[in-house]
Amino acid sequence: MGKLLIVGTVAFDAIETPFGKTDKILGGAATFIALAAAQFDAKSAVVSVVGDDFPQKYLDLLTAKNIDISGIEVVKGGKTFFWSGKYHNDLNSRDTLSTELNVLADFNPIVPDEFKDADVVMLGNLHPNIQRSVIEQMERRPKLIVLDTMNYWMNNSWDELLEVIAQIDVLTINDEEARQLTKEYSLVRAAAKIIKMGPKYVVIKKGEHGALLFHEEHIFFAPALPLEEVFDPTGAGDTFAGGFVGYLTETKNVSFNNLRNAVIHGSNLASFAVEKFGTARIESLKKSEVDKRLRQFRELTQFDIELQ
Amino acid sequence: MGKLLIVGTVAFDAIETPFGKTDKILGGAATFIALAAAQFDAKSAVVSVVGDDFPQKYLDLLTAKNIDISGIEVVKGGKTFFWSGKYHNDLNSRDTLSTELNVLADFNPIVPDEFKDADVVMLGNLHPNIQRSVIEQMERRPKLIVLDTMNYWMNNSWDELLEVIAQIDVLTINDEEARQLTKEYSLVRAAAKIIKMGPKYVVIKKGEHGALLFHEEHIFFAPALPLEEVFDPTGAGDTFAGGFVGYLTETKNVSFNNLRNAVIHGSNLASFAVEKFGTARIESLKKSEVDKRLRQFRELTQFDIELQ
Repeated sequence: MGKLLIVGTVAFDAIETPFGKTDKILGGAATFIALAAAQFDAKSAVVSVVGDDFPQKYLDLLTAKNIDISGIEVVKGGKTFFWSGKYHNDLNSRDTLSTELNVLADFNPIVPDEFKDADVVMLGNLHPNIQRSVIEQMERRPKLIVLDTMNYWMNNSWDELLEVIAQIDVLTINDEEARQLTKEYSLVRAAAKIIKMGPKYVVIKKGEHGALLFHEEHIFFAPALPLEEVFDPTGAGDTFAGGFVGYLTETKNVSFNNLRNAVIHGSNLASFAVEKFGTARIESLKKSEVDKRLRQFRELTQFDIELQ
Repeated sequence: MGKLLIVGTVAFDAIETPFGKTDKILGGAATFIALAAAQFDAKSAVVSVVGDDFPQKYLDLLTAKNIDISGIEVVKGGKTFFWSGKYHNDLNSRDTLSTELNVLADFNPIVPDEFKDADVVMLGNLHPNIQRSVIEQMERRPKLIVLDTMNYWMNNSWDELLEVIAQIDVLTINDEEARQLTKEYSLVRAAAKIIKMGPKYVVIKKGEHGALLFHEEHIFFAPALPLEEVFDPTGAGDTFAGGFVGYLTETKNVSFNNLRNAVIHGSNLASFAVEKFGTARIESLKKSEVDKRLRQFRELTQFDIELQ
């Protein structure tokens, strides 16, 4: 079975949308990634850090999904990373109400020995130096290293970010961030510039407008599934990433053609993530529901024009 | 050969984009629709009105593309409809600098006898009463009536608009207009409401984010082709509509499955329209270029996930 190493935040979120609000609930990029990847036949581990205020039930939840949590450090007397945000009415933008780094401020990731030969490494959004230190701990070059980042690191750790981007295979990034990273408005040009920075593949996430996968001169596009209602977009991008790497770890095939399928699997899982607050929908997701919606993706995108 | 009747503006445009500006050039919804539809094996006619300031060379251009212009009234001493606009830097929004209705103010469309049995009728954006008068002139119910409209008529001719929408098969509309028409933010819900108003199909155009086709519980999505550069978006929506109806007229098949293909053909032609000012790119477009780009659409969207 393929091994997937996931590095990122395990955290508390408090979310407010037009449909309601939550108290502190389970959140964090690595949480969403791992729960999404758990839909696939892969051996996953999460490397992260929490405080001892973090409920055992959340750790048990991950363990129950066959996710190795030996790499989640619990800091005695420490407080868990906390984010809270409020979405605007259209759910396409949000205000961050509070970000408390807490134990994340001194996070020093330690890759469990058993995962130093992971097939796929997913580096969730973190300081680029932390992401790089994980790559350096690997005993052999993974088949695929995927990295997610955000504008904060472009503003504050530009050189370090470029250094780690040079070492990875796939960069996942949203459209505005791709533009900021490359100073190119056209996403086609932005992707070409990013590929010159090192990655063989670039995934540009456009939220409700889908995701683009770039490789050499090739482009693949997965729409977001049109939904009657988006309830809470929190974690959709990380759920996408989890489906993407989970599928690639299961199939152990990192060809462009298989990455196309992986983008569909990621979009498919992300379409569930937004239906309830936080991780609730992904936690309860059944294989039959996933397959049914994959059929909808096929119906949504496949056409039948004969070409000479 | 299938017959296609196109009703809409034939006009002068003056366009300013970040890349340059034009004097008065050939424009108008019916012009873009007809030039796009001319890529297909269909017998097309345009019903419109121009002033006698309208250059013969533009009429000759349409004739050279085998477009019947006997339904284009030339008003002696009249001036042709004129629109000018300036695009913002991202090309996603624009300011209208001037709209001179001129002869369009008294437009009374007369359908040529030969096209009163057209297979497909494309009603470009016009006053809903003008659109309705065309439907009333048809000798038999066309296989498909497609109608395009815009927010202006929602603001100024609400009842008349609903009346004509109740008589058509396909409404093409952009995302913001679909929301305005239905008071629904979700496009899935908006489309469902529009279908209750009469049309069997709804096409929601999202510009650079593609187009959605709705029918009963089914949804099909065609992305816009990601381009290195968009030069001038003017007419892209009408070019889309022209490709859509041109293909349907050629194939004489108005099933949902064939409408899916038609949406791809429309998106494909629209991807050319934006590459040059006005109609320039569509005028010179070769079949081999069209086919090559259809292949790109296939590569862009087709995937290969086995489902049980």
